[in-house]
Amino acid sequence: MRHLLSAADFSHDEAVAMLDLAEDMAEVNDREVKKLPTLRGKTVVNLFFEDSTRTRISFELAAKRLSADVINFAAKGSSVSKGESLKDTAQTLEAMGADAIVLRHSSSGSAFRLAHTDWVDSSIINAGDGSHEHPTQALLDAMTIRQSLNQDVRGKDLAGVRVLIVGDISHSRVARSNLLLLTTLGAEVHVCGPATLAPSSLVGKERVHYLLDEAIRQVQPDVVMMLRVQQERMTASFFPTEREYSRVWGLNKSRLSALDDKTIVLHPGPMNRGLEIDAASADSKNSKVLHQVRNGVSVRMAVLYSLLSGEKENA
Amino acid sequence: MRHLLSAADFSHDEAVAMLDLAEDMAEVNDREVKKLPTLRGKTVVNLFFEDSTRTRISFELAAKRLSADVINFAAKGSSVSKGESLKDTAQTLEAMGADAIVLRHSSSGSAFRLAHTDWVDSSIINAGDGSHEHPTQALLDAMTIRQSLNQDVRGKDLAGVRVLIVGDISHSRVARSNLLLLTTLGAEVHVCGPATLAPSSLVGKERVHYLLDEAIRQVQPDVVMMLRVQQERMTASFFPTEREYSRVWGLNKSRLSALDDKTIVLHPGPMNRGLEIDAASADSKNSKVLHQVRNGVSVRMAVLYSLLSGEKENA
Amino acid sequence: MRHLLSAADFSHDEAVAMLDLAEDMAEVNDREVKKLPTLRGKTVVNLFFEDSTRTRISFELAAKRLSADVINFAAKGSSVSKGESLKDTAQTLEAMGADAIVLRHSSSGSAFRLAHTDWVDSSIINAGDGSHEHPTQALLDAMTIRQSLNQDVRGKDLAGVRVLIVGDISHSRVARSNLLLLTTLGAEVHVCGPATLAPSSLVGKERVHYLLDEAIRQVQPDVVMMLRVQQERMTASFFPTEREYSRVWGLNKSRLSALDDKTIVLHPGPMNRGLEIDAASADSKNSKVLHQVRNGVSVRMAVLYSLLSGEKENA
Repeated sequence: MRHLLSAADFSHDEAVAMLDLAEDMAEVNDREVKKLPTLRGKTVVNLFFEDSTRTRISFELAAKRLSADVINFAAKGSSVSKGESLKDTAQTLEAMGADAIVLRHSSSGSAFRLAHTDWVDSSIINAGDGSHEHPTQALLDAMTIRQSLNQDVRGKDLAGVRVLIVGDISHSRVARSNLLLLTTLGAEVHVCGPATLAPSSLVGKERVHYLLDEAIRQVQPDVVMMLRVQQERMTASFFPTEREYSRVWGLNKSRLSALDDKTIVLHPGPMNRGLEIDAASADSKNSKVLHQVRNGVSVRMAVLYSLLSGEKENA
Repeated sequence: MRHLLSAADFSHDEAVAMLDLAEDMAEVNDREVKKLPTLRGKTVVNLFFEDSTRTRISFELAAKRLSADVINFAAKGSSVSKGESLKDTAQTLEAMGADAIVLRHSSSGSAFRLAHTDWVDSSIINAGDGSHEHPTQALLDAMTIRQSLNQDVRGKDLAGVRVLIVGDISHSRVARSNLLLLTTLGAEVHVCGPATLAPSSLVGKERVHYLLDEAIRQVQPDVVMMLRVQQERMTASFFPTEREYSRVWGLNKSRLSALDDKTIVLHPGPMNRGLEIDAASADSKNSKVLHQVRNGVSVRMAVLYSLLSGEKENA
Repeated sequence: MRHLLSAADFSHDEAVAMLDLAEDMAEVNDREVKKLPTLRGKTVVNLFFEDSTRTRISFELAAKRLSADVINFAAKGSSVSKGESLKDTAQTLEAMGADAIVLRHSSSGSAFRLAHTDWVDSSIINAGDGSHEHPTQALLDAMTIRQSLNQDVRGKDLAGVRVLIVGDISHSRVARSNLLLLTTLGAEVHVCGPATLAPSSLVGKERVHYLLDEAIRQVQPDVVMMLRVQQERMTASFFPTEREYSRVWGLNKSRLSALDDKTIVLHPGPMNRGLEIDAASADSKNSKVLHQVRNGVSVRMAVLYSLLSGEKENA
């Protein structure tokens, strides 16, 4: 594997192997000395055209724990944030010796474009491209689900696990990457959201739901994944009001009690408490939000390790 | 010691021991190779809700010289800068493996809140919370005073040293932390400032002065500590005009000459030259401003070392 | 050498030796592990009063590859960006242990002022001061020219090479530093630009040209160096319109075809495609823009290595 662009890049066995490698990294992160020498002398650049402090820090820590040199390049607002210059910026970073470019960009497909032209040879990691994909988020979600279901996780997939993703499915890169990866791993993925935001093109109609109460009753999910409401979309005509959203699609105490005791709640963060999730649900024992964050660093270490540590042999 | 929240956290002997440890660190900083391997594989996060480039860099260098991985998180202006999300932010950072969170926040008490809830297990270091405390500043001031009075500093306290703190005492976290720590170390601390800014609740009335000329005459201080005027407070009704402030409470050439030759002048920086201190005083041989900056890195190394290097045994 | 302030700091032999050292660094950058332990425990501060992400990253990577600790200090917009405080800022950074200060500042002469007062003892590296100098840019340009002309570069200078610099010569620190360094290395340097922007004081009139087509015909350059148009200057009365600029002084396909096949094209970046250079020229095989970027890191490693690694002996 040279790039990580889409959650669809993984076959079933590759996905399981990547999650197993992430478990190895989690063990490093539990040590007194959270550090491996693997990527010493490698350069990882976080090229962020959109703000995302959490994702940037997660990748930065992952790279530093593998002993790589890390450069943060916040392109937002600068002259480089437009059009063709993505090419010039990426080529400049590669010329400076970037072994991997972690790209966050508001344009869907930007990571693909960077990887599949002859612009650069660096490894490209998609850290979120528009409303398209966010594959490391899907990996950390899969890792968190697997841990919640198994004592001994290694080698396991997610066969038969029922996952319900709730929110603005159409515009969510988190939803899209999870649909791809969780399905690859054998899970049964359902989605629920306002009809105006339903992903008609994504999945078969039988797994699309419009009301959260009904969806919970029908699906009896092992996992409920609440998507973050993008506040800038609340003004659009296809979006319900905050109050209606919260009333029909928000996770709250009463809906939490309708779930099985062992059902876990996920959220990619940062949470809009009181909107898509209330405080009781966010802080409940079902919530695995902090496990997701923890696993995020391990998953990104695994990805960087896979892409960069074998370079010598592949070259 | 698990956190550093207040200058009152130190007993007399603990304060002396911390200053001695800071002297060890100062020796490292005088070496050709300014680096210790102690915190390799530890993660220190600078979580700054207020801008403070100097303090952030001082902590960043301290952590790097101890070989820790450092993450800078400038929360200012971002969505995390409000209310409850301090909890979510801190828990997220801990989940990513933060061993210490260095917190700068405009709300008095924020560091305490973070440490004394069950939100996080990371060590919390208060790098300034509102008008409340700034304990590492007090440590570096104490270190600077001790060095100016002694050839051989180790094991010494500040018994009998007369310190005069000048400025807006009521709103100054620097003053408050110094009052606590210097008193613990045996110093006799006087304060001087406009009556509207006097800290009636802080110290006994006998050590409060209102005019700098008088205070210098009466106290005959070994140390004069000038506080920085916060320009944003100059508009408030309880604050004198710039001109009046400078005339009555500013340190200038003539007041400098009224001091003993060996009296030292301190300032937490950055200085408003021409306001609370004139150039002649700032650049005089009495001024130890750059010693303070130098000691700042050593003190922060000592604090990080104390909080993080013994973790294994304490856990 | 203690500072690097001007391209005139180098004698002929020193310039050749620095380029040779940069070639050694380039070999490090071609290795699997791009890292030398030389500056471990040293502190390099990037003190940038102007934005320049590329130059900052280039220095940051150079310092990290030599194992130094790096601090980024973006002074722009902050209170330190004015007047006298450059002194306070620099002294503060030195007190924190800065071994080198890489200074980018909008005032011509600021790096000189910092180095030639008794303010600081740190090594000062001029990373661009107003419209004055940018010596590491000249070094990387010289390195790129030397590589394009020779198989085995070591020990070689640029005797007899004809270089044509095109653009706003008067206000360009890139032009000024290159004029100095390339001439020292034996090159024959010509300049071309609008008459209002001609550097009457810089060079003998016989090497000043006003029309690019004529200049190309007369000079038959081995190297064409296109300067970046500073958009903020386009409004000034001495500056032609964009359209006129591009028509008379822009490098385009037809002018490219008037050059010798082996003539190389340089640009300090980032390029204004369509203004001073068109896409065909920017992406042609003559263009060495990415070689310049690559050499930038090597040159800066060489400079940091020279200034800081021998400190013990020189002290």
